[in-house]
Amino acid sequence: MFVVMEKDAGETMIEVVMAALTRHGFDVHRSTGSDQTVLGVVGDIASADIREFEVLDGVQEVVRVSEPFKLSSRSFKRESTVIDVNGCRIGGKDVVVMAGPCAIENEKQLFETARSVARAGAKVLRGGAYKPRTSPYAFQGLGVEGLKLLRAAGREFGMATVSEVMDISQIETALEYVDIIQIGARNMQNFNLLSAVGQVRKPVLLKRGMAATIQEWLLAAEYVMSGGNYQVILCERGIRTFETYTRYTLDISAIPIIQKLSHLPIIADPSHATGRRDKVMPLARGCVAAGADGLLIEVHVEPDKALCDGPQSLYPDQFAQLMDDLRLIVPAVQRGLP
Amino acid sequence: MFVVMEKDAGETMIEVVMAALTRHGFDVHRSTGSDQTVLGVVGDIASADIREFEVLDGVQEVVRVSEPFKLSSRSFKRESTVIDVNGCRIGGKDVVVMAGPCAIENEKQLFETARSVARAGAKVLRGGAYKPRTSPYAFQGLGVEGLKLLRAAGREFGMATVSEVMDISQIETALEYVDIIQIGARNMQNFNLLSAVGQVRKPVLLKRGMAATIQEWLLAAEYVMSGGNYQVILCERGIRTFETYTRYTLDISAIPIIQKLSHLPIIADPSHATGRRDKVMPLARGCVAAGADGLLIEVHVEPDKALCDGPQSLYPDQFAQLMDDLRLIVPAVQRGLP
Amino acid sequence: MFVVMEKDAGETMIEVVMAALTRHGFDVHRSTGSDQTVLGVVGDIASADIREFEVLDGVQEVVRVSEPFKLSSRSFKRESTVIDVNGCRIGGKDVVVMAGPCAIENEKQLFETARSVARAGAKVLRGGAYKPRTSPYAFQGLGVEGLKLLRAAGREFGMATVSEVMDISQIETALEYVDIIQIGARNMQNFNLLSAVGQVRKPVLLKRGMAATIQEWLLAAEYVMSGGNYQVILCERGIRTFETYTRYTLDISAIPIIQKLSHLPIIADPSHATGRRDKVMPLARGCVAAGADGLLIEVHVEPDKALCDGPQSLYPDQFAQLMDDLRLIVPAVQRGLP
Amino acid sequence: MFVVMEKDAGETMIEVVMAALTRHGFDVHRSTGSDQTVLGVVGDIASADIREFEVLDGVQEVVRVSEPFKLSSRSFKRESTVIDVNGCRIGGKDVVVMAGPCAIENEKQLFETARSVARAGAKVLRGGAYKPRTSPYAFQGLGVEGLKLLRAAGREFGMATVSEVMDISQIETALEYVDIIQIGARNMQNFNLLSAVGQVRKPVLLKRGMAATIQEWLLAAEYVMSGGNYQVILCERGIRTFETYTRYTLDISAIPIIQKLSHLPIIADPSHATGRRDKVMPLARGCVAAGADGLLIEVHVEPDKALCDGPQSLYPDQFAQLMDDLRLIVPAVQRGLP
Repeated sequence: MFVVMEKDAGETMIEVVMAALTRHGFDVHRSTGSDQTVLGVVGDIASADIREFEVLDGVQEVVRVSEPFKLSSRSFKRESTVIDVNGCRIGGKDVVVMAGPCAIENEKQLFETARSVARAGAKVLRGGAYKPRTSPYAFQGLGVEGLKLLRAAGREFGMATVSEVMDISQIETALEYVDIIQIGARNMQNFNLLSAVGQVRKPVLLKRGMAATIQEWLLAAEYVMSGGNYQVILCERGIRTFETYTRYTLDISAIPIIQKLSHLPIIADPSHATGRRDKVMPLARGCVAAGADGLLIEVHVEPDKALCDGPQSLYPDQFAQLMDDLRLIVPAVQRGLP
Repeated sequence: MFVVMEKDAGETMIEVVMAALTRHGFDVHRSTGSDQTVLGVVGDIASADIREFEVLDGVQEVVRVSEPFKLSSRSFKRESTVIDVNGCRIGGKDVVVMAGPCAIENEKQLFETARSVARAGAKVLRGGAYKPRTSPYAFQGLGVEGLKLLRAAGREFGMATVSEVMDISQIETALEYVDIIQIGARNMQNFNLLSAVGQVRKPVLLKRGMAATIQEWLLAAEYVMSGGNYQVILCERGIRTFETYTRYTLDISAIPIIQKLSHLPIIADPSHATGRRDKVMPLARGCVAAGADGLLIEVHVEPDKALCDGPQSLYPDQFAQLMDDLRLIVPAVQRGLP
Repeated sequence: MFVVMEKDAGETMIEVVMAALTRHGFDVHRSTGSDQTVLGVVGDIASADIREFEVLDGVQEVVRVSEPFKLSSRSFKRESTVIDVNGCRIGGKDVVVMAGPCAIENEKQLFETARSVARAGAKVLRGGAYKPRTSPYAFQGLGVEGLKLLRAAGREFGMATVSEVMDISQIETALEYVDIIQIGARNMQNFNLLSAVGQVRKPVLLKRGMAATIQEWLLAAEYVMSGGNYQVILCERGIRTFETYTRYTLDISAIPIIQKLSHLPIIADPSHATGRRDKVMPLARGCVAAGADGLLIEVHVEPDKALCDGPQSLYPDQFAQLMDDLRLIVPAVQRGLP
Repeated sequence: MFVVMEKDAGETMIEVVMAALTRHGFDVHRSTGSDQTVLGVVGDIASADIREFEVLDGVQEVVRVSEPFKLSSRSFKRESTVIDVNGCRIGGKDVVVMAGPCAIENEKQLFETARSVARAGAKVLRGGAYKPRTSPYAFQGLGVEGLKLLRAAGREFGMATVSEVMDISQIETALEYVDIIQIGARNMQNFNLLSAVGQVRKPVLLKRGMAATIQEWLLAAEYVMSGGNYQVILCERGIRTFETYTRYTLDISAIPIIQKLSHLPIIADPSHATGRRDKVMPLARGCVAAGADGLLIEVHVEPDKALCDGPQSLYPDQFAQLMDDLRLIVPAVQRGLP
C-alpha cells in the first residue's frame, strides 16, 4: 500500500499519518521527493479499510497494491483448479455443459427434459426446488420433493446434479440430494449463507451478483474458501446496465479476466443473462469461444407451459443443435466436448 | 396488458396468441387496424411473466400497463403512511433523523455517540450488531451484546432504535431489543428474509439494493406487506454506476418518484451512498431539500478509531452543525425538525 | 401508441387528453373498461415526444408501440443489407476482418502492419489519421498525410480502407482517400456530422456510443440513412458499466439483437472494448461465434512503441493465430472466412 | 506513478521495465522489499498511457498518483474561480439561476418567458437555437434568427444569455449574440469543438456527458482551458444508469466532488436530468442545498405547446415558487439569491 501525501503537506501531517499506520501494525517506509512525500506500507493490508487513511489531513491518495482476495487468487495457486463431480471434471480439458429446467415442476417434466439433455451431451442436470421470485405472487418451487426428483433423474441418466439454496436452513437437505450447491446472484453477498456453505464439503456454484464487481465476486468466493471449502465454481450471469433490450448484459470479458486473476473454474449462464430464448444460443457459442469452462443452460420440454422462465428455456431440439455447434467451436480453444 | 402483433402476422398466429392468453385465464379484446392487430388483455396481470407471450410467433411487443406492485402503491392507498415508533412519527410533518455509529463497539463508544446525537435532535439511534462485510477478514459485530447496549442507550437518551438483521435466525432476538428492524441493501432480494419480517409487527426499514430498480424495491416492500406487516420505511442509499469517486451514486430523484408511486415513507442514507465524510453533509442537506421524510446518518465519537466505516462517520460537532443547517431548510419543504 | 388513463380519471380529463392527441393530428380510438379507460392512438408517432401526453392530468402511462426508427428497421426491409466495398461484401456469407494500427504513425509502421494483416486474411485496412484523445496533451494524428499513406498501403496489399472523421470539415478530404468513413463512439450523437455523412455515397462505419442504448444507436443510423446514404455498418465497441477491470463492457448480446431489429450489418471491436491485448483474442472469437458479420482489430508491428493504444494492439503473430482460430469457428455459424 | 512488480518477477523483467520507463524520459527509483519490487516513477506522467507499462512481463499493477488534469485542478489554483458575465458573478456569493425555454420558438414565446423568469430572479436567459435531437424527424431549431431573439430578450430584461453550439461553424455567429457558449452533453468529448471554444474569450458552460466520469469531464474542461480560455462553468445534468423512471440519474454528489477537485464553478440542470416537470423542483432545491453555484432550468409560458421538451419545462408560476423556496434554503449554505 502507498500513502501519497499532498504537495503542501507539512511535517506534522506526515508524522500523524505515519503514527496512524504504525498503530495499525504496519511497517512504513518513507520516501521524500523534491516535490512530494510518499509512504510505502507493508503488512496485512488485505483486511484494512484504506479510507481510514484517505481521510487524514494532508493525504492525497491511498493506493492498495495487493489484491484483497487471497485463496481464490492465481498468485496464491498458479495451476487451475479442476473440480471432480462424480467423474465430471469442471475446469479440465472438456467444456462441461449443465442443463435442465429453471424449476422442477413434476416427474414427467423433469425426466423428459433430463433424458433429452443427457442424450445431447450435458453432464450436469440443473433444476430449481426453491425459487427466489421478484414478485411474492409467483410460483415458489416444490422444495424437498423437487430435490428428490432431481436426484432420481440424475441417477437415471448418469448426470451430476446442481440446485440452488436460498437460506442456511435449506443446506442440510440439499446436501442429501444434490452434488453441487448453487448460490444465486441475489445471495452473492449473503455472507451468512456463504460462510455456511464454506463448512460443507461439496462443490459450490457461485453466481455473480448483478451489480457485483469482479473483485467483490472473488471476495465472495473467499468467504466460502476461508471456511475450508475450496471447490468453488464461478458463474457469470450478466450484470445490470442501462441497456434494456436484454434483462442483463452478459459480461463476456469476465471469462478471460477471471482466468487471469483466479485459479477457479468459470462458467457462463446465457439463459438468465438474456432472458430470451433467441439470444441464448449465440451467447452460449460466444462464451465457449471466449474460453469458458462450461455453460449453465435452461432447457424445458414444453417451454410455453413452464411455470418459471419458460421464455428463456431452449427446446430440446435447440439444445441438441447448440451442442453440435459447440463441438465445432471447442477445437479453437483447445478444448473438447463429449 | 397489450399484445401488439407484427404488421405481417397472419390470422393463425393471432389465434394462437389469443388461445395462449385465454388459457392463462385472461379476457382478450381484439382490435384490428388497417395496419396492425392489437390485443387488449384484462385479468390478473401482476403475476404473469409477459415474456411468455413475447416469444410467440408474430408478436411484436407486449406492454404491461398496470404496476406489478399493489399494497405499496399509492393507487392502492392514497394517503401517505405515517409510522409511529414510540411517538416518533416517520412520514409525518417532521423530518426524522436517525443517527449513530456504523457498528456498536462498546458501551462507552455507543453511549457517548448517542448522547451527542440525541442532544442535536436525532430521534432514532442506529447501530449495527451483525455486520455484513465484503471481506471475510474484517470485524463482524458484537451480536446480541450489541443489541443490549443499543436498547440501553436508546432508553437512556429517549430514542427509538434501529438495527440490521442479516438472517432469519436473528429476527427473534432483534425483536426483543430494537424498535425498527433494518434490512440491508445486500438482502433487499433475500425473499425468505423479507417474508419472515413480513410476519413480525414492528416497522421494517428496507434499504434499496445497489442495483435495484425502483420497481424491484417496491416489490421487495410488497413481500413484507403481503405477510401483513404494513410498516415499511424505504431507504435510498445509492446505486452502482460507472462513477468511481464515490462508492455509490445517491439517486436523489428516487425521493420524489417514490412519493408519487407509493404511500410509504422514504428516507435517505448519505453516509453509505458516498462513503466519505466530507460528502455526507452536502448530500444530507440535498435530500431533505428534495423532500425526504428522514435521514440515516453515521456518527461516531472517534471516527478515526472506528472498527467499521469510520471514514464516512461524522464527528458529533459536524452532526450538530448539519442539524442546524437542516433547520434552515425544512421550511422550504413545509416540514419541521425538532 | 396507447394512452392509459388512471383508474379514477374523470370524463373531463379524458376529453382533455383526447383533444391534445387530435390537435397533434392523431386518430384516437377510445376503449372504456369496467376499471380503466385506454386510448389507442394512430398516426405519425415516430416523431412525437410521448412525454407531452404523460404529463397531462389523469394519465397513468403512455406506451409507444411502433419503433421510432424506420429505414434501419428490419420491418422496413426484411432481407439483410450487404455492403460491397471493392468486392469485399460486408454482411454477406464471409466474416470480414478489418485490421491495422490505431494511429497511422509513418510509412514503415503502416506498410509492415498492412502486409502482415493482409497475409493473415484481413480484407479492410484500418488506421487513424485524426485522433480524438481524452487528454489534450497526447498525440493527435498525422491528418491528411496519414490518409495518403493509408490509401497507398490499401492499394499495395489489395485491401479496402477505413478511417475516422471527427468533424464535418474532414469529410471531403477523407472521401478522396478512404473507402469507408468511420464515425467514432464519441460522435455517435453528433447530429450535424451524421447528417453530413448522410449526404456522401460511401459506406459509413458507425460505432455505438459508450452510453448509447441500442435504440439510440439505430436512430443515429437513421440520421445517416435519412440523408440518402443507406450503407451503414454498425460496430459494437463496449458500453460503460460499473465494472472497471476492462475499459468498457463489450455488449455481446447487441449482436443478435441488432440482427433481429435491423437489416444492417453488425461488426465488433474488441480492441477498444477491452483496452487490453490479452482480452482481445477471447472476445474476438466470442463475437464471431455469436454471429458478428465482422471484426475491427488493432494490430501493430511494434505495439510497445505505438503512439496510441499500443497496449490493446495485437502483435502480427497473435493476429495470424486469431485468424486461424476464427477459421475453426465460422462453420458453427454457417459463415466462411477467406 | 508506481510500477508494482509481481512477486516472482525476475531481475531481467525488472530491468526491461526500468529501461522502458527511462526511454519515456522518466526518472525511476527502485525499491526492493523482501517480497516484492516497486518502482517509483517521476516525470510528466499526465501525458503517459499507463497501460503501456501494465502489459510488460512481470508487472502486477501500475498506479498513477497525480491527477491527469492540471489547469482545472484545485491543486493548480487554490481559490475558487468566479466568472463575471455582465456583472453577474457565477461561482461567487450568490446562487445564479439560468432559466428559459428549451428551444427558442418565436418572439412572443421567448419574451413572455423571459419576462416571467427575470421577474422571479433569474439572471441568465437560456434558449436553444440549434437543437440536437435524437431523432432526425424532430424540430431542429431556428438557428441565427433564434439567437437574435435571444439577444433582444436578454437586453430587454437585463439578463445575460446562454445558448448551445453544436458545431465549430456555429461559434462565430453565436459569439455575436450570446454571453455564454454552451457545450452540450453529447459534445463533451467532441475534442475539435472543445479546442475551438478554447480559442474564444467568452465563458463556456460545459455539460457533463451522460456517461462521462468526473475525471473525463475535467479533462474536457482542460481541452478548453489549454487553449487559453479559463472561463469554464461545469454543469451536472444526469448520468445514465440502469434506473428508467427518470431519463438520467442526477449525480448530486458531483457537486461537492467537483468543489474539492477543481476551482471551477459547478451548476446543475435538473430539467434534463429528470425529463419530468414534477421532479424538477425537488431536485433543484436539493442541488442548491448541496452547494451548487447555480441552476439551469427550463421554463416555458405554455409547456403543453412547446416544440421541444415541454414535459420537463416548468410553468412560470412554478418557477417563481421554486425561487421562493430557494431563498429559504440558501442561508443553510452561506449563499444569497437576489
